[in-house]
Amino acid sequence: MNQDEMYVQSGDIAQLVGLSHKNFIIRLKHGEILQTHRGNLAHDDCIGKQWGSQVFSHLGNPFFLVQPSLGDLIIATRRTTQILYPKDIGFILVSMGIGPGQHVIEAGTGSGAMTTALAFAVGPHGHVTSYEVRQEMQSLARENLSKLGLEDRVTLKLADIKKGFDERNMRALFMDIPTPELFITQVRETLTPGGFFGCIVPTLNQLMKLTPVLRRENFTFVEICEIFLRYYKPVPARIRPTDRMVAHTGYLVFARPVLPSENIEEHENQEE
Amino acid sequence: MNQDEMYVQSGDIAQLVGLSHKNFIIRLKHGEILQTHRGNLAHDDCIGKQWGSQVFSHLGNPFFLVQPSLGDLIIATRRTTQILYPKDIGFILVSMGIGPGQHVIEAGTGSGAMTTALAFAVGPHGHVTSYEVRQEMQSLARENLSKLGLEDRVTLKLADIKKGFDERNMRALFMDIPTPELFITQVRETLTPGGFFGCIVPTLNQLMKLTPVLRRENFTFVEICEIFLRYYKPVPARIRPTDRMVAHTGYLVFARPVLPSENIEEHENQEE
Amino acid sequence: MNQDEMYVQSGDIAQLVGLSHKNFIIRLKHGEILQTHRGNLAHDDCIGKQWGSQVFSHLGNPFFLVQPSLGDLIIATRRTTQILYPKDIGFILVSMGIGPGQHVIEAGTGSGAMTTALAFAVGPHGHVTSYEVRQEMQSLARENLSKLGLEDRVTLKLADIKKGFDERNMRALFMDIPTPELFITQVRETLTPGGFFGCIVPTLNQLMKLTPVLRRENFTFVEICEIFLRYYKPVPARIRPTDRMVAHTGYLVFARPVLPSENIEEHENQEE
Amino acid sequence: MNQDEMYVQSGDIAQLVGLSHKNFIIRLKHGEILQTHRGNLAHDDCIGKQWGSQVFSHLGNPFFLVQPSLGDLIIATRRTTQILYPKDIGFILVSMGIGPGQHVIEAGTGSGAMTTALAFAVGPHGHVTSYEVRQEMQSLARENLSKLGLEDRVTLKLADIKKGFDERNMRALFMDIPTPELFITQVRETLTPGGFFGCIVPTLNQLMKLTPVLRRENFTFVEICEIFLRYYKPVPARIRPTDRMVAHTGYLVFARPVLPSENIEEHENQEE
Repeated sequence: MNQDEMYVQSGDIAQLVGLSHKNFIIRLKHGEILQTHRGNLAHDDCIGKQWGSQVFSHLGNPFFLVQPSLGDLIIATRRTTQILYPKDIGFILVSMGIGPGQHVIEAGTGSGAMTTALAFAVGPHGHVTSYEVRQEMQSLARENLSKLGLEDRVTLKLADIKKGFDERNMRALFMDIPTPELFITQVRETLTPGGFFGCIVPTLNQLMKLTPVLRRENFTFVEICEIFLRYYKPVPARIRPTDRMVAHTGYLVFARPVLPSENIEEHENQEE
Repeated sequence: MNQDEMYVQSGDIAQLVGLSHKNFIIRLKHGEILQTHRGNLAHDDCIGKQWGSQVFSHLGNPFFLVQPSLGDLIIATRRTTQILYPKDIGFILVSMGIGPGQHVIEAGTGSGAMTTALAFAVGPHGHVTSYEVRQEMQSLARENLSKLGLEDRVTLKLADIKKGFDERNMRALFMDIPTPELFITQVRETLTPGGFFGCIVPTLNQLMKLTPVLRRENFTFVEICEIFLRYYKPVPARIRPTDRMVAHTGYLVFARPVLPSENIEEHENQEE
Repeated sequence: MNQDEMYVQSGDIAQLVGLSHKNFIIRLKHGEILQTHRGNLAHDDCIGKQWGSQVFSHLGNPFFLVQPSLGDLIIATRRTTQILYPKDIGFILVSMGIGPGQHVIEAGTGSGAMTTALAFAVGPHGHVTSYEVRQEMQSLARENLSKLGLEDRVTLKLADIKKGFDERNMRALFMDIPTPELFITQVRETLTPGGFFGCIVPTLNQLMKLTPVLRRENFTFVEICEIFLRYYKPVPARIRPTDRMVAHTGYLVFARPVLPSENIEEHENQEE
Repeated sequence: MNQDEMYVQSGDIAQLVGLSHKNFIIRLKHGEILQTHRGNLAHDDCIGKQWGSQVFSHLGNPFFLVQPSLGDLIIATRRTTQILYPKDIGFILVSMGIGPGQHVIEAGTGSGAMTTALAFAVGPHGHVTSYEVRQEMQSLARENLSKLGLEDRVTLKLADIKKGFDERNMRALFMDIPTPELFITQVRETLTPGGFFGCIVPTLNQLMKLTPVLRRENFTFVEICEIFLRYYKPVPARIRPTDRMVAHTGYLVFARPVLPSENIEEHENQEE
């Protein structure tokens, strides 16, 4: 990080973390005010400060001024739907090999949390094309991406994927819609053989509909899993897990389309 | 993916997945032979094929020819030590906001599994500097990175971090060494205020030594967590979790250095 | 169950379960009224009904009239402290072999939830002796046990276990106090060689103090574990785990005192 | 425990625990020999010793001589089928309120592990009636129960439950068979209104068949859950969870039959 980057500038995305970990993610702009239940913070009191500084509201309450991580950005996504969480997103990116410079497809833009993560991971030289059928969701996602300056990396398409995806020979497609089992043929057409398909479904009913369809559509290496994340209270004298945790977000399903071939089932890992 | 990329070329990293999910990750080269317990596979039988094809050993056993994901590469890391696993790596990358174009520091190169993940995530325009004190580990990591063509993105330093890191104002540092609590001052010096510190420790004893030191060294937003990954058997008629799973890899610890400030403890999220 | 037992009688312990699973556990008595936010229920409207009937409050809201399980009784324990939960209690009883006709010791009566479970499990021919140092906790536990008609099976002792337990050659002792590591010598004196010691501690700090002391005091077969319980929403069209769950109650520690002997450590199960 | 009980007698059930936690559960008998891979142990070398003693094989290897817990007995059950494990059994007993003096029904004797637990929990004044349709399973269970001296507490019935259970007005019935959804009417007939039904199913497919049937058959308070048990390595200098754990045994389903009534669904706990 060079010297310039160490200091907060107008236009930067900043996270202000108050007492009890209450936090706000904003884009800083001269003259604006952040209103919190612990008092007002003038953006101009932040601009010019060094990252990692403590700033104070007009009521004297302290806030740390830091840059948010991708995880922080995701959790702060303004949403009207269930979003994907960092515990799942991290594993999806690694399992689907999504990284800098790639062009990836998303089906089900939703509030744009996963879109944000994909756009972050593919970087300025990559691209994300994301399909959504509901106009109001697309607008919300567009707004969320725009706030983070990620809109240039993303093409938002308002379309029903029943008619298929426009793209061909794609390397990776992630799907977060209520009935993925109905669109596996379309996924098959847009992914290159050996490409990566990933999906999240919240219920067992969905999981049980999707699994046999993947088999029928000549996908292999079907993997189903779920991820638990347990936090600990970091109080040195009484370290212990938190009392409660998220018990479920969804089942992650991964599979890869292959060219017509023999004995697909036997390639599966039947055990663990 | 353009047409060329759809076909396997000499020099490509390929994953060959045989029956029962047995798999091999190799760099393809004219004239070479992969020997497996299910027969030999000539690299030349793979080169020129379309990705996603099935190829056959001289004994007639089928293998799928695909590109490995980052997760596959990590699991296949040749190792002499415990490595980090995809479930942890994904969450670490997201939580520390590691992405394209960044320069990040690693302390404890080990076998190079995490180094591989960092190098993948920062992409061709980013860089990883990784410290290791054991010559033989560094050599193994170098070999592992070199096989994947990632050596240009990584600087491997053979040095004892007791003397500190050479870099200053760094945005992110990940540490995987037995006694992290001894080097927090050094971490403090190399990270920019508001930067990201991440660490993994396998035992409770280590966790209990590290936690109070982070507090003393003016780190805030200390988060301790652990991740469980449970796979399901994808047999449509009998979907159920696998019988056994990994119960533990390590505790993940995240914290952020800040400038001298007041009431750090009260900024912590005491609950969940 | 004979015919008489199928009908609700005055003096019975009944559970009244209203809409949204809101429930009340009461001892029925002629002339009394249960007041709920969904209206009043006259005990006399329950007495004489068949178990499993639906009864209605004066506002017309339905309640099921059933007998509570041990789990229900435990969860309904009136408490001023953290209590043990059914997921832990069931495993403790099975692991310590606690059953009908035994005399068992408890250290730390607390609100009496575990005392209730022990009294239930040893039955009318067994006995529980429970130590507590705080008068007000003992009173609360006595009241809780009395409501369930279990007071005859339990001797509550108000005493500091620093001075030791009065009993000798006991088969099983369960401890739920903040500093178990300080009283292991006393446990040793009251348990018969080969007896069962069980304990719950909420924090890692406690766990790390207790573990080495058990070794020093000639206990073997030390087992440390924790139990997770995850519920599912039983809606047939959308079966899925609940959104949140209890992440932690405490670490369970089991160990057995033995006569002076060789190589105790090697008897341990180092792996799983 | 009186003085006599502190000493090992002929006819006692003993657990001999060797190095690395290898253990054997036997009924002691004058003149017999236990053969182990660490040498032979004469039963007569155990009889007369104090419980908690160390005894030695003819090769000089040490074994601890202790009484097994119910958990130990269950795990040691000689089996030809999957058995229920202590983590599940403990919770089942507590959730179904099974205790001393009761008469309970089991459907699916299997190898008799759960039968053993039920017989233990109801004690000498209670009774278990267990149905099984396979002659060879019943014989194995009979042998297992007989070894433990529990045969008097159990009636084993060789019958197809399609024709219904003989008993009426029963308080509790536990079922461990492949197709529980086919026999819920029969369960309904044998249980008293307000009684306790419990069941274990290993697959999601089974769970999805069973859940709607319970609703149709006028059961309420349907609870579905699963239990995870994680062990820790008790080495004081390096306390940490074991590397691997059991990921799944089965889904536990509990429900209670009630008299014909209104709005059953609204009584359910939709959330956690």
